[in-house]
Amino acid sequence: MVPASPPIRFLQSPTQPAWLDLALANLDEILLDHAHCERKAAGVALNLICRYPSTVPLVRSLTAIAREELEHFDQVNQILLDRGIALRPLVPPPYGAALKAQVRRSEPDRLLDSLLVAALIEARSHERLGLLGQHCPDVALARFYRSLMASEARHYGVYWVLATTEFDRDQVEQRLETLAQAESEALSPLHPQPRIHS
Amino acid sequence: MVPASPPIRFLQSPTQPAWLDLALANLDEILLDHAHCERKAAGVALNLICRYPSTVPLVRSLTAIAREELEHFDQVNQILLDRGIALRPLVPPPYGAALKAQVRRSEPDRLLDSLLVAALIEARSHERLGLLGQHCPDVALARFYRSLMASEARHYGVYWVLATTEFDRDQVEQRLETLAQAESEALSPLHPQPRIHS
Ligand SMILES: [Fe+2]
Ligand SMILES: [Fe+2]
Ligand SMILES: [Fe+2]
Ligand SMILES: [Fe+2]
Repeated sequence: MVPASPPIRFLQSPTQPAWLDLALANLDEILLDHAHCERKAAGVALNLICRYPSTVPLVRSLTAIAREELEHFDQVNQILLDRGIALRPLVPPPYGAALKAQVRRSEPDRLLDSLLVAALIEARSHERLGLLGQHCPDVALARFYRSLMASEARHYGVYWVLATTEFDRDQVEQRLETLAQAESEALSPLHPQPRIHS
Repeated sequence: MVPASPPIRFLQSPTQPAWLDLALANLDEILLDHAHCERKAAGVALNLICRYPSTVPLVRSLTAIAREELEHFDQVNQILLDRGIALRPLVPPPYGAALKAQVRRSEPDRLLDSLLVAALIEARSHERLGLLGQHCPDVALARFYRSLMASEARHYGVYWVLATTEFDRDQVEQRLETLAQAESEALSPLHPQPRIHS
């Protein structure tokens, strides 16, 4: 099956077709991992607020994102319960750690990298939930994935805007290029366990 | 000035009048600390979800609490911006660390203690926001504090219910007694900096 979504700004390589096959063959596990992703996305926003409590645009926009991610988390948990899928921890794919390792340790680099890594993760989630929304044979589930698209697209836009508000545009674009390359490399080869970010 | 709220279940000692005087004399700093408290309350709920991802009632109720705390955080931040109070970090009072030190390290004690400490913090917030709602001379601010009362009361109830769902009632009550004593001791003597939990 060939993913046919339009390429998403920020992402250097589109998702390979094998990911979609793996995901569609393991929808229960993908749903469970998706719940964890939404919780982690809320945590990322909240940690940034905690670390940069004086930066007004960051605090305001990331509060809104954290609230939306928790709403998504709750929606996915409801679907898991409706389907009788037990909530449980899952071993995450190496993707998150690989991206975290790219974040430079000293400020203000750390802020810039954190915002761009978050933007890339949101963009990739947006792309992959879009693929599920388009190709998932379960109609209700496909509709649910599509219902998340608008906010996930907004989220990567928010992180991008925050980066360009706090930093020079050229600097942001140059750093994004490096990080986007690392992000695409982290997804190749395909991680064998079915995850949103395998 | 004598705090005249009814005593709150869980709390061993009512807030001393000196706290209210300190708070009313430093409302800007109390508002700023209040914002941090709401963010931390969301963080506490999210961390518990992260640590106990298989416990369905916990995941569902704490997602609702985290969402409400973020809504409160956003409301307080809006008030800070309206009043021209700059967002900034604040040194927290020793209260949080004193309570955290009471949490036993091994499971399932850790879960029980975490739930009861969260319940106590919510109950104390409820009591003190109630005092501000009753005695704050700024009418709009007093109304805002009163508007938070219902959800803060619900929050300590939720933590209590989760504790009694996961543990034996006698065990919960006995441990609550010990922790409630530590909580009251942590607030005496009054911390000199104006904080919600001074
Ligand atoms: Fe989301
Ligand atoms: Fe998102
Ligand atoms: Fe609150
Ligand atoms: Fe609360």
